[in-house]
Amino acid sequence: METQEQITTKIVLDSWYSRIDSADKLFNGLTDDQLLQEIAPGKNRGVYLLGHLIAVHDKMLPLLDFGPQMYPQLNDPFLAKPDKSVAEILSVQELREYWNATNVKLTAHFNTLQAEEWFQKHTSVTTEEFINEPHRNRLNVILSRTNHLSYHLGQIALLKK
Amino acid sequence: METQEQITTKIVLDSWYSRIDSADKLFNGLTDDQLLQEIAPGKNRGVYLLGHLIAVHDKMLPLLDFGPQMYPQLNDPFLAKPDKSVAEILSVQELREYWNATNVKLTAHFNTLQAEEWFQKHTSVTTEEFINEPHRNRLNVILSRTNHLSYHLGQIALLKK
Repeated sequence: METQEQITTKIVLDSWYSRIDSADKLFNGLTDDQLLQEIAPGKNRGVYLLGHLIAVHDKMLPLLDFGPQMYPQLNDPFLAKPDKSVAEILSVQELREYWNATNVKLTAHFNTLQAEEWFQKHTSVTTEEFINEPHRNRLNVILSRTNHLSYHLGQIALLKK
Repeated sequence: METQEQITTKIVLDSWYSRIDSADKLFNGLTDDQLLQEIAPGKNRGVYLLGHLIAVHDKMLPLLDFGPQMYPQLNDPFLAKPDKSVAEILSVQELREYWNATNVKLTAHFNTLQAEEWFQKHTSVTTEEFINEPHRNRLNVILSRTNHLSYHLGQIALLKK
């Protein structure tokens, strides 16, 4: 018999993993050349959104108290700055590798957590705040980042022929 | 002191309402003419995605055991058929009204549920299946539809100037 905590954690993590799986299939089905195209005229390129997703997922490591970011060098070109404002960015091939490595690392950490640890606070909320805002927990971070991923997947999917 | 059930329900519903709010702002910020444009060359029009989102949300009424769909006439043009395959669809103005009415109706039903009722099964799973698959509950429907909404919001946002 599963506890309510286990059921909830499963629902939220299943949703995360299913979108990561969709993203993997989508990226693997697009060539480097396709990823270098704009998703719509004058809008972000696929490669920018890939780098952006890596940076956002990488930042989940410190936010969930799992350790430092792996690729802080992506924050400036893919979070602080808009697309096409940086002269040289990483190659699509490197970004594909970083994407996989980031998600593998997150999964390894997720697997170490017991259900109840998902209900602990994330690192950008203080212990005092958390007393009155107990919904600001790790699970909420996953929920929010899953929706962020869905948002951009809808855009990257436009690159498909 | 909130229970785990209350905290979880709040997290998932907050995420839903925040995307509905984003969608309302996005639709209200686009003119009818903008919504009649394709999100990218050769892709779905904004108006099709609006109709599609209404139909998917409307179907949540029976799925969550709240009653029948309000607008079953949208299923054919916005779920069964692709965009630009139906000669005449509803006006953007009518669809804007249906969008609001659908979400108002859902909110009214959501507000009647106690936290523990969100952990009850949805209507497309049988009582027998639910014993072994207790994650197929109402909350899971909200999670899934929130991500579906995020996916299409990322696309509709491309219509902004």
